[in-house]
Parts: sequence; C-alpha cells; structure tokens
Amino acid sequence: MIRIGIVGGTGYTGVELLRLLAQHPQSELVAITSRKEAGMPVAEMFPSLRGHVDLAFCEPAEAPLSRCDVVFFATPHGVAMSQARELLAADVRVIDLAADFRLKDPAEFERWYKMPHACPDLLAEAVYGLPEINREAIRTARVVGLPGCYPTSVQLGFLPLLDPAAAAAAGGDIVERDSLIADCKSGVSGAGRKAEVHTLLAEASDNFKAYGVAGHRHLPETRQGLAAIAGKPVGLVFTPHLVPMIRGIHSTLYARLTPAGRKLDLQALYERRYANEPFVDVMPPGSTPETRSVRASNVARIAVHRPPDSQLAMVLVVEDNLVKGASGQGVQAMNIMFGLPEGTGLGQVPVLP
Amino acid sequence: MIRIGIVGGTGYTGVELLRLLAQHPQSELVAITSRKEAGMPVAEMFPSLRGHVDLAFCEPAEAPLSRCDVVFFATPHGVAMSQARELLAADVRVIDLAADFRLKDPAEFERWYKMPHACPDLLAEAVYGLPEINREAIRTARVVGLPGCYPTSVQLGFLPLLDPAAAAAAGGDIVERDSLIADCKSGVSGAGRKAEVHTLLAEASDNFKAYGVAGHRHLPETRQGLAAIAGKPVGLVFTPHLVPMIRGIHSTLYARLTPAGRKLDLQALYERRYANEPFVDVMPPGSTPETRSVRASNVARIAVHRPPDSQLAMVLVVEDNLVKGASGQGVQAMNIMFGLPEGTGLGQVPVLP
Amino acid sequence: MIRIGIVGGTGYTGVELLRLLAQHPQSELVAITSRKEAGMPVAEMFPSLRGHVDLAFCEPAEAPLSRCDVVFFATPHGVAMSQARELLAADVRVIDLAADFRLKDPAEFERWYKMPHACPDLLAEAVYGLPEINREAIRTARVVGLPGCYPTSVQLGFLPLLDPAAAAAAGGDIVERDSLIADCKSGVSGAGRKAEVHTLLAEASDNFKAYGVAGHRHLPETRQGLAAIAGKPVGLVFTPHLVPMIRGIHSTLYARLTPAGRKLDLQALYERRYANEPFVDVMPPGSTPETRSVRASNVARIAVHRPPDSQLAMVLVVEDNLVKGASGQGVQAMNIMFGLPEGTGLGQVPVLP
Amino acid sequence: MIRIGIVGGTGYTGVELLRLLAQHPQSELVAITSRKEAGMPVAEMFPSLRGHVDLAFCEPAEAPLSRCDVVFFATPHGVAMSQARELLAADVRVIDLAADFRLKDPAEFERWYKMPHACPDLLAEAVYGLPEINREAIRTARVVGLPGCYPTSVQLGFLPLLDPAAAAAAGGDIVERDSLIADCKSGVSGAGRKAEVHTLLAEASDNFKAYGVAGHRHLPETRQGLAAIAGKPVGLVFTPHLVPMIRGIHSTLYARLTPAGRKLDLQALYERRYANEPFVDVMPPGSTPETRSVRASNVARIAVHRPPDSQLAMVLVVEDNLVKGASGQGVQAMNIMFGLPEGTGLGQVPVLP
Repeated sequence: MIRIGIVGGTGYTGVELLRLLAQHPQSELVAITSRKEAGMPVAEMFPSLRGHVDLAFCEPAEAPLSRCDVVFFATPHGVAMSQARELLAADVRVIDLAADFRLKDPAEFERWYKMPHACPDLLAEAVYGLPEINREAIRTARVVGLPGCYPTSVQLGFLPLLDPAAAAAAGGDIVERDSLIADCKSGVSGAGRKAEVHTLLAEASDNFKAYGVAGHRHLPETRQGLAAIAGKPVGLVFTPHLVPMIRGIHSTLYARLTPAGRKLDLQALYERRYANEPFVDVMPPGSTPETRSVRASNVARIAVHRPPDSQLAMVLVVEDNLVKGASGQGVQAMNIMFGLPEGTGLGQVPVLP
Repeated sequence: MIRIGIVGGTGYTGVELLRLLAQHPQSELVAITSRKEAGMPVAEMFPSLRGHVDLAFCEPAEAPLSRCDVVFFATPHGVAMSQARELLAADVRVIDLAADFRLKDPAEFERWYKMPHACPDLLAEAVYGLPEINREAIRTARVVGLPGCYPTSVQLGFLPLLDPAAAAAAGGDIVERDSLIADCKSGVSGAGRKAEVHTLLAEASDNFKAYGVAGHRHLPETRQGLAAIAGKPVGLVFTPHLVPMIRGIHSTLYARLTPAGRKLDLQALYERRYANEPFVDVMPPGSTPETRSVRASNVARIAVHRPPDSQLAMVLVVEDNLVKGASGQGVQAMNIMFGLPEGTGLGQVPVLP
Repeated sequence: MIRIGIVGGTGYTGVELLRLLAQHPQSELVAITSRKEAGMPVAEMFPSLRGHVDLAFCEPAEAPLSRCDVVFFATPHGVAMSQARELLAADVRVIDLAADFRLKDPAEFERWYKMPHACPDLLAEAVYGLPEINREAIRTARVVGLPGCYPTSVQLGFLPLLDPAAAAAAGGDIVERDSLIADCKSGVSGAGRKAEVHTLLAEASDNFKAYGVAGHRHLPETRQGLAAIAGKPVGLVFTPHLVPMIRGIHSTLYARLTPAGRKLDLQALYERRYANEPFVDVMPPGSTPETRSVRASNVARIAVHRPPDSQLAMVLVVEDNLVKGASGQGVQAMNIMFGLPEGTGLGQVPVLP
Repeated sequence: MIRIGIVGGTGYTGVELLRLLAQHPQSELVAITSRKEAGMPVAEMFPSLRGHVDLAFCEPAEAPLSRCDVVFFATPHGVAMSQARELLAADVRVIDLAADFRLKDPAEFERWYKMPHACPDLLAEAVYGLPEINREAIRTARVVGLPGCYPTSVQLGFLPLLDPAAAAAAGGDIVERDSLIADCKSGVSGAGRKAEVHTLLAEASDNFKAYGVAGHRHLPETRQGLAAIAGKPVGLVFTPHLVPMIRGIHSTLYARLTPAGRKLDLQALYERRYANEPFVDVMPPGSTPETRSVRASNVARIAVHRPPDSQLAMVLVVEDNLVKGASGQGVQAMNIMFGLPEGTGLGQVPVLP
C-alpha cells in the first residue's frame, strides 16, 4: 500500500483526488490537511464521500506527512515549494497539482506568479509530470510538477505534429512551428472552488466568453512544453474561453502544414504515436469528440482533421480537466513512480449522459 | 461469471447499464440488441464506452439471449412482457427496467399504459425489484419488474413512516395515510433519449415547470408500493417537476403526523430502519441532501425534518435517477438474484463537482 | 419625468432596475451610488447597459438624492432604514427592495435580521408594496417595502383561497388555514450577486437541493402577508429549493380544501379575483406554467388544480424573481405612486427561448 | 403601419420575430401560417406571448399574404423560393430568414442544400440582408435573403480587416486573405426547434463539441460574403462548436497581419468603420465581450486584439443568434425597406443576468 498525504484538500482537485484514491486498490490515505477546515470530517464537507473517506481535515502542522510515501499538493501556488524540501528530506516524494514545479525558469515563474521561487534547485530537479512525454523521468522523480489542465490538452494535441522523430521521417518539419493556435474552451471547475463573482451560476451560465487573452499563466507553460517536444522554440497563440459547464476542456488546435506535412497521413501519424498510450484515444477519421465522452475519466480523446480548402491541420482534443487535466494525471504519475500498472485505480468508465 | 443479455440498449438506462456492467467483475456481456442500430458497434454510438465495450448491437432475432443467465430489458413498455415467457422457458431470468411488471393489477396496467397485459400469469409471479422492501423475494425471482425512478425515491422516503412494525411500536399509525404529498423534481434524462421538443436544451434549460399533474404513470405504481408497505390503502398527491439538469431526482415529501407520530424521534426511526441498507444513507439531522452528492452512484440519501410550527414530517430524498432509479438498482437486483454480495460492481464514488 | 435615485446598484436587482428604467418613458435617472465602485461607469460594470445608461456610480455622500422624487434601495438589509428619514424630510419617497420595511413587527425584524430596527415609526407607516393587495395604500405611500421574491409568488398564489370576501361568498373558509404548504423553487440569481461558494456554477449547476428549511427569512414575511389577507393567523410550511437556472421562481402550493371549498369552481374563483390585474395571468384549466414563459417580464402566471383522489387545492405560480419578484414590482409600485398607468415601462415581452 | 405576414412561425426565429414585432410600433401582424398547427392560437403554443399576440396560426393556403406589405419566411430551406414569385407579383416584399436567397450561385445552392433553386432570376435580384454592408441595396430590395447567424458574426468581425478602402489607406492588404480562421461557438437554439437527439438537454448540457467540420452550410455563405467585402477570393477555415446555452454566438477570429497591417492601429480601424452603425458596438481595447451582454438584443459587440508574440489579429464577436443573427436583423432590414428609423422596435436592453 502506498501511504498518501494530501495538503489542501478542500478544492476541486482535492475532492477529485479523494474520489479516485477511494477507488485505488493500493492506496492508503494517511492524512489530509486544511488550515481552515481542521477538525471537520472530509465527508461532511463533501457528502459525496460519505462511506468512502473517514478522515477529518487536520492542521498542517499536525499532519503525519513525513510518514507518507508521497504527498500531493492540491493547494494554491506557492505552498508546495515551501514544504517540498522538508518532505524530501524525510524520503517522501512530492506531486504538486499547482504550478510551483511547472516552469523550469525561476525568472519566468516569478514573472507569471508574482513570487520568487523558493527552491530553484528542486525546480531544476523536478520532473514535468506528463506521462506521454516524460514517463521514464517520472519513474524515478522525487518531485513531480503536474501539468496544468489546458497545457495537458494542447501538448497532447500538438505532440505528433512537433515530434522530431516524425519530422525526421517526413523529411522535415511537419508544421510551421511559429504560428500555432490553441483556441481552448474550459468548464468552470477549472477556476477552482473559490468564491468569485464571475464564476457564479448566475454569471457564467447561459453565457460564453474568452478571457485571459492578454496573457494566461498556461501560455508560458504550454509554450515551454511544446518547445521541449519540438526541441526548438515555438510560437503559440492561446485563447482560453469559459464554457457554461462543470467539467471538460475542448482544445481546437490549428497549425499550418509545411509542404512535407501536407503529404503525410495525419491520422496514421497520430494513431502510431499514441498506439501504446493507455489514456490517449485517437478517434476515427472525421470524429468530433465531445467533452462528456471523457467525463470523470482519465482519458483524452483526439481527432485530427484537414479542413477543406486550407493548408491547416486542425486537432480536436477533449479531456476532463479535473482528471486527465489534474488529479487523474496525478494518480497516473503516482502509479508510475511506485511501479504499479499505470492504469491502477483509473478504470472509471466516463459518465454519460 | 453471469452471462448477460440486454434488449434495447440505445437509451439512457441502456448505456448506464453498460457503464456499470463494464465495471462489474462477475458479469459477461453476451449480447445487446437494437433493431434500429443492428451492426453498429456500441462504442461508436456511445464513445464513452470505447475500450470498455467491444460488442456491436445485433438484431433481436439473432441475439443468443437464450444462452444468457439473465436478460435486462431497457426497452419501451410492452417489449419485456412479449418476450419474457420464451426466455423463462430457456431458464433465463428477466429484469425489466420498463413498466411491464410493476403494476400488479393487469387492468390498472392497461389503464395507464394503453395496452392489454400480454402475460398476466407472469405479472402475478413477478417481483417488484425494490431491494429495501423485497430483498428475499428478489433472491429467487424469475422475473423482476424494477421500480420507476420517482417511485423508488418516494417509497424509500415514506417507508419508515408507513412501516407497520414501526407503527405498532409507536402505538398506532405515525402519519395520516390518506394525505401524503410527494413534490418531486427530476433531471431531464428521466424522459429518456427520445427526440422530443420539450426536452431540448433550448426548451428545458434555464426553465422550471411541473408536468403530468393530471396523472403520471408513476402515481399508481407509487400508490401501490406505499399501500403494500403500509398494508393498507394510502392517499397520495404526486407532482413531478422538470429540473434543468441531466441526472438526479429530489423528492420533497410531506406527511401529517398523528399524535403518536409527533412523539417519535423521527431521526432515530429512519436510522434504525436503514441501518443495514448498503445503498440508503440517512443524513445527519438538519441536512438538505443535494442530487449531485449521489451523481453516478447507486446511493439514495435521505433527510427527515419537522418543519417549524407544523404537524408535518418532511422528508428529502435524493437519488440518481439512472442508477438507484434504474440501472444501478437493476445490477443490485441481479447481484441478489445470483447470490453475489449486493454491492458488487456498485462501488462508484459519486462524481462531484 | 420622475427623477430617480438608486442606492446600491451593483447587484442583480440594481442592474435589473436599470434595465427596466432605461426603457421607461417617464423616468430620469439622476444618480446611482456605490461606495465600492464609485467613479466606475455603470456600463463598464454591466456592458449590457452600454448605450442605455451613461451614469457612473457615485459616492453615497455625494449623490444628489435629495433632489430626486423617489429613491430605490437595492442594498443589503439595514441600509434603507438608516437613510429613509432624511430622504422623507426632503420630500423624497422611498422604495426599498430589501427587507427593512417588510416585517411590521420590529421584534420580528430583529429576530430574523439580527439587527434592531432603526426607525419603528417609519416601519409602522410603510406600505407593503404588493399592488394586487395594497394598491390604494401604495398610491400615497411615502415609504414602500417591496415584498421578497418568494413571498410575492406565494401570496399571489394563495390570495384567492384566503380572501375573506370569497370565503363569505362560499359560506365559510375555503381552505384550512393552519396547514398551508409552499414548496418553492428559485433560480440562483435569487441569492444575489455575491461571491459565495454554494452558488458557483460548478456547485449549483446540474444539481438540485432544498435549503433554509429550518427557517428562511421569507417565512415570517409570507406568513404575515397571508395572515393579513385572511384576516386571521395562518400556518405555513415553506420549503425553498435551488434550481440550476438563472432567473425564475416556481411555487407549488398545497392547501386542504374545506367542505365549502370542495364545492367551489376554483378556476372561476381565480379568474374573477385577477380579472383586472395587469400583471397576474390566470392560465387555462390544466395548465402547468413554465418559468421561462415570464422570463424578463413583470407577469406572474398562475394555474389552479384539484389533484386526483385528494381534498387538496394545488396552485402553480411562476414569476421572474428579478422582475415581478423585485425590480419590476418596484417600477409597478413607482408608477402607482406617481399616478402613471401601472404598466408604464413594463411592456416587455417574455424572452423565450 | 406595415402589414406583416409570417410564413412558418412555430420555430425559434418565428417566435422571436413575434416577440420583436409585438413591441414594434409600426407593425401590424396580419397573418401567421403553419400547416401543422393551423387553428391553434399562437399564444397557446408560446405562452410567453399571452396578451401580446392574439392571432392563431392559419393554413398557408388561406392566409391573406397578398394583402401584406411584407412577408417573412421563418421556414425550412426551400419554402421561400417556391412562394416568392407570387408574392412579388402582388407587390409584397419578401424577407427570408432561411437560406434560399443567400448563395448567389444556384449551383452552389444546389450543392449545399441538395435541391435545385426554384427561381434563379429572383436569386439574382435578391439582396443579401446585412445592413452594415448592403444598407442601400436593402432599401429598395423586393427580396432580401437574411444572412445566417454564424455568417453575420464572422462578416462583421472580419469586415474592417478586409475593407478595400481601409487596405488602400494602409498601403496594401491588411491581412492575408487566404488563411482566415473562424472558430465559432453557438448556443443550441441555433439548431432550431426540431426534435433531435443531439440537442436534447441530456445530450448537449454539460458538454462541448465541434461539429460540421467537414463542411457546414454557413461556410460557403461566409466565404462568399467575405469575398464580396474584399473584392477578391478569401480562404476560410470555419469550425462551429455547440455551447450548452440557449442563445448566443461567440466567434473567435484569427487573421495573419501583413507588414502593412502590423503597423495599423486596429482599434481605431474598427471604431472608425463602425462609428455610425447603430447595432455594432466596438468594445474598448482589451475587452472580452460576453454573449450575455447582448442577450435578447439586436447588438453585436466586437473586440479586436493583437495576441502577444504573434503576427495575428484576433477578433472576438458576440451576438444573439436569434436577434442580430436572425429575427432582429430581419426587423432591421424591414425598417430600412420601409423608410423607418433603423432602430424602430429594436431598443430592447439586453437581459443580464
């Protein structure tokens, strides 16, 4: 059994982590902390967990985190980096669902998150937890920075087009790396369980809007990830939109095909790249995947298109932002880190309708 | 392994049954029929099932149903009763999710469903599949008529108040049986996966209404069930409403307490009655259960109240209409019929948010 | 032109009042205050008002309210009563959309709103602003306390059943006054434009629940109103529920008919009572009115039923909680107070779909 | 008074037209036809119109359409072109909300709508009813083909970038005409009031998907319109998506700026172009307009952006698909055709929240 601690479990990624771990046969939840809710039974705050989680939230200072094998941080940005060193010293591995270990450049981190990075050395060591790209590094990582929800979908969607091996096989770049567009749409749970006016039902329901177009924090992360995939810088326009639904991200990606790219069978390219990935499902040609087809599951579904009368590739990616975009990916990373079959505890069938 | 057939799996109770059975360790799906979709892979119609269900829909006439241990009917009313006799002759047990085996009086069936009953003898034999009331009879039943979604919630909610044993202990009836009120609210999936104008998103969203107030088919079923519980006739007003959400039923029940009833500790009454029920959760005093707290799970949650300045008991019941109100209850009944632990394959944690 | 001031216009009743007044041919908006947003153009906070409202929010202290003919308070409870005296001294009439002038008994006010009443003498003078009951008193009122959204619908629904004149004509009470039930359902905008977790889209969407069952502030107000109508005390159970929609209240009302009541033609009773009411629409027999049929308009629609096999009257009432339940009723009251045709500026056709 | 007939008023554009005309001071509704609902009072089908519309639907053959000044067709494709000639012969002008008079090339019409065009001569004469482009031609038009909902938003969004006059002033093309992208999102009412499975609330709610990516009928229309604006062919990728909301279209448009375009002040370009347009609102720099900010009104709001680190212009456009995208635009065109102030009857303030 893997002994697990969770720091900050009162948000959506926290309760989703609890939902998944409650069904994970090799996990033992040791402690879950919340300064504000200390003493309250978890199942009292989240009645959906009645009968599944018996713990109460405890004071961070009193949590037996050092006795855990791994600690998840489902906290605001800044918390994980302040506690990681002490946990590592106690041989506890760290998985951060926030952004502390995503951006490899501490200056970039500071620019976007408005705080200096507390442990640049650990940041340098940390592994970006996208299994489809970093599986081997995750295996032995002591600190994993899980990708953001949008970046997961955008990277999985562009990956086969930017893959250097695929480019080499095609005789050159497949797409123009400097003009990628990610037009992304997210359900409201992506904003977290924070009391804010703009995500009230009376504000966000029966409504659609773009936001963060002048610069969203997931832009530098995604750009960094795509550049790491391509081995070269990329240019990316990223437009997030808010959808009046609870869960789900739909990314509509556009890339200009090079002459080499236009000759390729993109469907075959995607199917080949993801043939062995348990949580990436390449849909049949012509598909338009729906977010509900992955609701509450760890699968991302992808369809690749060649729009008529254009030189573009268009890629449609759907994921559940709280599962493959957050907590499910965290469990997937944990499984890899502890040598379990990667899908352990992640067999949930999507809930439809 | 239980060999399972499904007749008519293209509706919501069908796809929900598939979701649950795909996670059931003792089930083997042998055939699923659909006249209209014969030949189409199930996972093509419901991409949520990709990787979980490999079968294609087959022609009813060609389905090897007689080789099954049990056949579920997820069909419109009238289908199960026309096929049940042949299946029973082949030693196949039958679980009907429609209404063919709910109303015990064939005349009442004909009055509400506008067709004569095809097999009154089997109707007489059939067991009403509400485990909390008929567990023992379900064990050996050859034909189970599963309760409707509304009737499940209303019966579970009123049960402790009408229970003759409880009445005896209280020294007389607890509530006035002749003036029960069930003000019920259901998500739109309760109307099924049929193309109809009134359940379009553009009609049913951002809207609330009552319907069927002049006489809903679940009224005679619920009245019959409550009378069976009480051992005497009951008077029931049943007002269904349509809620702009996908899943979930919330029943708000009102009953006038007798002098004997007013002296009772209703919370204790409910906790005692449901102490050993795996899928009925009596909430702490003062609770107002939410439908989302049971979303995609087989649990019903109940809270009992004494409204201020009144002689009423008020009971709040939530269930997922597609799980405890339909397919999950079907799996629960199947587990009972085949001697499995009742919760086999039904351990899903509710999906929240 | 009526010179109008609005105190506290950043909430939903405020923006709705602005929407209605922008279309009102006899109104001149003089000032709108907001301590927090002073200086911000109204149309910047609410882009829906671009081109319709040119004012900016101003500091309360600097607002020329004493030059207005009438001031609306779209504020939290407690504000109107602290400023009313000064405005009245300047011959400005006051319409409060909050609760300061609803409960006639200052002790009752203090009990439910946890603050002493600041001006019991003005409370005594204030008129409860439900035109269908108090039209004449509103005409000359200096202070109007507008009804809450729930109480408006419940009072309009029960009114014909409790009307002493109707009772006299029927030869006695029509319903048992001691056991009224109001099972009410409201859209989320009823909770106001406040940042709170429980009304986030990710919490309240695809969900249904009761709340406030131990005692909602609209209970004493409604009970007071019904008692005033009946001329005698009433017993009321009031169960509010939260519906995943923006606007709309649906009240499902139950009353036990007396022997006299059972002989009445309830449809005729309702049609007669509301024959001359411009904003109450009695629907044809058998109707189940939808909230969307009144969306964004000042109309309440009512249907009265006799549920089968019962001694009950059931009344269905729909209104837009922000219009007839708040700001529209405020404009209606203003029209009455200033001698305008009652429907001036209130001719909006409901928005459907 | 303009005497108005409506053919086929049972869909969403029909009921919306009725809502608007009921508030139009110069309109007199003479007849509304529906083969299927003949005899039924309009307000019985749409209770929102009770008290506003007294007509009943009548048989097409019996409708006094030839006595009208103008007839709106709110019908499926193919109806208007079969009746237009006869109406014109009676001096009745025709406004078609469907697609019969949109595509100028009869072969293109036949390719996309799978039926030959019934009157190519009238098609040649017909005016494409986008006032911001064709105001003068609309004035004298006998037949107006109203733009589709998506095409309206995409054309209004790209117009200033493709305008030859602006290009001339800038010293050359502003954007690369061959690689325009329109990533569009629509509420479900855009699919009409037809009973279909994929637009049921239980299917479309809490879900997001692209559709029609292999070729949507609005693609050729938009391409034709943009080419007409530019005076040269354009290349367009058009990706429609379905949003779980009732009303609203949000178009996110991308165009590659030429060197000349990169030097321009795009904000000034848009403000200048739309300075005199009553129903196009150019938002302040940095804005992200919301669909709800135009709900139930005839306004389109536009914001233009330069995404960081890119050579793109990005334009955000919102409209109410049933108003500016259909019926409101129809009333606007009618006002122009009959010499009324263009905004007559179109002063509705958007409904928010």
